[in-house]
Amino acid sequence: MNGPDAPLPRAAAAQPRLARQVTFLVEIDRLKSVLRRTPIADNSRMENSAEHSWHLMVCAMLLREYLPGPVDLLRTLQLLAVHDIVEIDAGDTFAYDAAGQASKLERERGAAERLFGLLPPDQERDLWALWEEFEAMATPESRLANAVDRLQALLLNAEAGGGSWRSNGVRRASIEQRMAPVIAALPALGPFVERVIADFTEAGVIRV
Amino acid sequence: MNGPDAPLPRAAAAQPRLARQVTFLVEIDRLKSVLRRTPIADNSRMENSAEHSWHLMVCAMLLREYLPGPVDLLRTLQLLAVHDIVEIDAGDTFAYDAAGQASKLERERGAAERLFGLLPPDQERDLWALWEEFEAMATPESRLANAVDRLQALLLNAEAGGGSWRSNGVRRASIEQRMAPVIAALPALGPFVERVIADFTEAGVIRV
Repeated sequence: MNGPDAPLPRAAAAQPRLARQVTFLVEIDRLKSVLRRTPIADNSRMENSAEHSWHLMVCAMLLREYLPGPVDLLRTLQLLAVHDIVEIDAGDTFAYDAAGQASKLERERGAAERLFGLLPPDQERDLWALWEEFEAMATPESRLANAVDRLQALLLNAEAGGGSWRSNGVRRASIEQRMAPVIAALPALGPFVERVIADFTEAGVIRV
Repeated sequence: MNGPDAPLPRAAAAQPRLARQVTFLVEIDRLKSVLRRTPIADNSRMENSAEHSWHLMVCAMLLREYLPGPVDLLRTLQLLAVHDIVEIDAGDTFAYDAAGQASKLERERGAAERLFGLLPPDQERDLWALWEEFEAMATPESRLANAVDRLQALLLNAEAGGGSWRSNGVRRASIEQRMAPVIAALPALGPFVERVIADFTEAGVIRV
């Protein structure tokens, strides 16, 4: 009593555009198995990049009011929905791994070619544009999206008692550098972010 | 070398609005531990409701073209970002559990009161409105959101060789009833959905 072979492409065979969309939507399910270095808040396991993406989208909905000036929330949510998909092939690159960061763009471009290439050409172009906009951090939408990406890791690390700061012995200066775009995009959050870092440094969790 | 106690409320103490938002954003992290009855596509484990919500948002972005008539994609994504949060307290109610479905609304309303009530009042109202709109299935945005919610479960069950259809001995008529709103909202997907159900019934995975 096995299921039929390749049931989804077969069922969509008469609709080639739908078949490509369905193939992509099933392929990206693998993002649920890409683990990050940050634990979930109860510290029971590492977070995966799919649930992380959802969490960021809710963060953006609730915190966009701190971005001075107008922002297109739809575009922001689309940036966040797509920004980690390349990790299916390229893996998650730890924010505080300098060597990994250096090779990140090349690895991720190859991943984008394969993964977005599963889609119909118009949607492939749309997803390339979203991913490149997120990475360039040049639009208000991308600045908001990148800010919540970095802020959410701080929230989880703090809630989990130190998280990847503790397990990787990350230095205060590295965390401050990582959080600079958060404070630049969302200035009202500066005192909060700085206080979290100071408190964890005083407690000996973050290295000086 | 423990972290400081309650580090996030403490760091946000001077900003009560931010403190409420941060408390909510950390609380909803628990959605990552709410398991559904549907496996992820590689059948290695059950899907959780947070990663599920992300997956639906990408589905909506790519499949909205099949909804006849205009649809506000931002509203649709917001509905999907919020629709499962009540499961943190109410649990995931299996789609084919009639008794569970009967008590679902009452349990979920209590959950919405507690969870959305963590937020500042204006955002609490926004999230209530999003959740109620999703549940009522009366707007194009809600019809699209509910359609991808049901369709995505079909994709995962099919890809995983039967998934919750197999493990729960679900009958064909129940699945067809569950998929009726998918076909009503996205008529072009009717032949695909019907073919998947027919193939799994012929293979003996779905019960007649």
